[in-house]
Amino acid sequence: MEASLADLKQRLGEIDDLQRTQLLLAWDTEVWMPPSGESSRAAHLATLETIVHERQIDDRIGELIDDVEPYTATLPADADDACLVRAARRLWEKKRRIPTDLAAETAGAKVESYQAWVKAREEENFAGFRPSLERMLELQRRLIECFAPYDDPYDVVLDNYEEGTKTEDVRMVFAALQPEITALVAEHASEGDEDGFLRGPFAIATQEALSRELIERFGATWDAFRLDLTVHPFAAPVGLNDIRLTTRYGEDDLNSLFTAMHECGHGIYEWGSAPSLERTPLQGGAASSALHESQSRLWENVVGRSLPFWRWFYPRVQAAFPALADVSLERFHRAVNRPHRSFVRVDADETSYGLHVILRFELEQELLSGKLAVRDLPDAWNARFTELIGLEVPNDTVGVLQDTHWASGLFGYFPTYLLGSVLSVQIWEGAREVLPDVEEQIERGEFAELHGWLRENLYALGSKFTPAETIERVVGGPIDPQPYLRYLRDKLSAVAAGS
Amino acid sequence: MEASLADLKQRLGEIDDLQRTQLLLAWDTEVWMPPSGESSRAAHLATLETIVHERQIDDRIGELIDDVEPYTATLPADADDACLVRAARRLWEKKRRIPTDLAAETAGAKVESYQAWVKAREEENFAGFRPSLERMLELQRRLIECFAPYDDPYDVVLDNYEEGTKTEDVRMVFAALQPEITALVAEHASEGDEDGFLRGPFAIATQEALSRELIERFGATWDAFRLDLTVHPFAAPVGLNDIRLTTRYGEDDLNSLFTAMHECGHGIYEWGSAPSLERTPLQGGAASSALHESQSRLWENVVGRSLPFWRWFYPRVQAAFPALADVSLERFHRAVNRPHRSFVRVDADETSYGLHVILRFELEQELLSGKLAVRDLPDAWNARFTELIGLEVPNDTVGVLQDTHWASGLFGYFPTYLLGSVLSVQIWEGAREVLPDVEEQIERGEFAELHGWLRENLYALGSKFTPAETIERVVGGPIDPQPYLRYLRDKLSAVAAGS
Repeated sequence: MEASLADLKQRLGEIDDLQRTQLLLAWDTEVWMPPSGESSRAAHLATLETIVHERQIDDRIGELIDDVEPYTATLPADADDACLVRAARRLWEKKRRIPTDLAAETAGAKVESYQAWVKAREEENFAGFRPSLERMLELQRRLIECFAPYDDPYDVVLDNYEEGTKTEDVRMVFAALQPEITALVAEHASEGDEDGFLRGPFAIATQEALSRELIERFGATWDAFRLDLTVHPFAAPVGLNDIRLTTRYGEDDLNSLFTAMHECGHGIYEWGSAPSLERTPLQGGAASSALHESQSRLWENVVGRSLPFWRWFYPRVQAAFPALADVSLERFHRAVNRPHRSFVRVDADETSYGLHVILRFELEQELLSGKLAVRDLPDAWNARFTELIGLEVPNDTVGVLQDTHWASGLFGYFPTYLLGSVLSVQIWEGAREVLPDVEEQIERGEFAELHGWLRENLYALGSKFTPAETIERVVGGPIDPQPYLRYLRDKLSAVAAGS
Repeated sequence: MEASLADLKQRLGEIDDLQRTQLLLAWDTEVWMPPSGESSRAAHLATLETIVHERQIDDRIGELIDDVEPYTATLPADADDACLVRAARRLWEKKRRIPTDLAAETAGAKVESYQAWVKAREEENFAGFRPSLERMLELQRRLIECFAPYDDPYDVVLDNYEEGTKTEDVRMVFAALQPEITALVAEHASEGDEDGFLRGPFAIATQEALSRELIERFGATWDAFRLDLTVHPFAAPVGLNDIRLTTRYGEDDLNSLFTAMHECGHGIYEWGSAPSLERTPLQGGAASSALHESQSRLWENVVGRSLPFWRWFYPRVQAAFPALADVSLERFHRAVNRPHRSFVRVDADETSYGLHVILRFELEQELLSGKLAVRDLPDAWNARFTELIGLEVPNDTVGVLQDTHWASGLFGYFPTYLLGSVLSVQIWEGAREVLPDVEEQIERGEFAELHGWLRENLYALGSKFTPAETIERVVGGPIDPQPYLRYLRDKLSAVAAGS
């Protein structure tokens, strides 16, 4: 039995090595690869995907799991080895349903599709991306069919990011959120140009220095972190102590500060995983994209848009950008919280952001079920966008082409952003109960206790438990949209009262 | 048979994908990886090495080669498939001698050893590197034993970089070179500070712009190339159209211009490989490090230190660095060619460079045979350095710790640098016969015909033939030290006559 457990861990460790190698290649593809490297990179990724998949579905993994389950069943349910073998069993049974050639074809298609998306986006031309998106959807549908029968095709893709969560559950949470968010946006959205000072110009080198300062203050260290530039920011945990954050800068906004806090949240979640979980499927927060997003949102929004935070950081930002010298703290704080109708999800305010997610959640269900054809997608996007956000989309680059997700094969991922926002407030309220002076600490630019509490109570768990189990452990109950709605209402009322 | 050939190519293609993935990881390790990423990177590289090795020695590869050899034996000897199957046979038989766990252990040890070397070098402390070097040598000896019986242990490591070349052949070439080079250095070496203007300061941003200009002029394009910073410059062909060059800059010298030309030579060799060889063991110049080095040397030295080249480029360098305004072309050209006794190989002049190589060739033979213990290496280095170059080594950082090669497990590699210099002149003379006005072209900053001739006659061949066969094809005879000695003598005489 001991030999079997060691053999199983060795095999899972090698799979983890290959997956983190894939992450490095994906990071390099978006950060440094010269454009003509595309075709060889597609081959490299396809070969790695083939090997990962062959190894994941190896009969021997199943035999080893059979060997060790009688032993791990005797362990406490939260013992690392018990959690590992449960996760290994689930992954093995899930992956065995996907043929290796389909997995490899999907990996190769993602690289080409990403490049087609970049080009189409530059050219404001959805037609150039359409064949790639059709191919990605065709591959997704073939992947979904591997899991027939299912209640809803979307359940299959959602399970990749949120184990055990059903589409119907998400619909219910979003049904509670959408009318309330719509009402908050209608009540509070900026109609004029009161916040025009947020359009800069803000020198990019200064934005970068401030971004790095925030990442350091939140507790990340550069011996284990990097920050680079990409079209679409992300965090890639290449190793437990090798975390690659990416961002982007625009001279005419300060979004980069929020992006830095957001990606840092993802990064420190991965970095905080217990070392005992390294090189296992339990390392990091892969089991739940919503919990992952709860941490990017907690640091970006719940902390990073709070009045205590800006009491500490605004004087630094004012000193860095003299154009803000005459803008009061209250006015700045209101501006970075006030809803405003906008086209691009990642530039959206915290409140209307949810509506951008709901749009994508609806459309990708229709794309996957075949109810909506790719050729009709831009029209469907634009029509539903106008209903939800109240603006007419001027071109596809700020419309249907704005996100990399579908180009990269990420279907079923979008709802986790909004679920993450909901969870971020539940988790924050849990932390505040234990750390009653956390807001005073933030006002002093001190984040160590908050980071420490989150690390101990959430990050260290990695993916030992299912998302629902982890949520139960951290917040003492299931996901609940009400604290998030209360938080938005309270903040927007306070901001409005100050104006 | 057709199915077997396709299967063989698919398997070799996947191995190539994994090896280029290893190259990307190695590049990233030296260019971007945060330092704490070291331990996970070692695991990733060890896993890749294990998989590559398992696949290289797979019984099925041998069976497929058996299947297709009767067919490829009927093809012309220079047909791609005939060359491919010959190379596959040789690699398979060679790799099967190395146990997989030894291959993986070596890959992991290289990462740790490299980091220990970086640290020891910073601290001018050989003792900190000694355990790592001892481990690398122990692993090398175990690798060599896999190839017993052998005439000379050094033959085994040399064969990794120069297939079929024997240590005794190298000794004979070097025996012809060493006394002549020593005499040339004695006759021409700068003793005073006539060339002090080469110590700058030269702004690094300007050096980078000039480096990029040279790389572009030689014909590389940024859609397929990158240029980044490392401690020790190298070229990594991550894909046929994804070539990563690295360099370094110092404010007090212009070596970066020669480094850029050098690494560009390696890069365009790989880039020029016939597309039909892509994703096979024949892609690029891996079969002969000496031929590879002949191209870095041809562009760096034969072209890049010639008077016609500087007639074109010196006005630009003068315009970029006003400190050179009063330095004549002749004086500058003499300075970048004049021998000078120096400690660091990569900063050495073209002539005395060979003596640095001969030192390493001698010492690594003694390390591998066990005649020299690692603890005695610094003393042995310093003593022989004084004999060959005539200087007392002040510390290990500019002595035995200056090169990454041994730290990275590259034993048997050094002699290929000097063999490359020898070949560079033979190949240059071949090109000049066909392109009689090549020097006039260079004087106009035009390199396309030279690049084109080299691409057609050498780069496109990739590793289809053995090094000896390729040399025979390109220069019409075997390696011969005399043209190189004649070239050095002629240049140094001309330079001296101008002074």
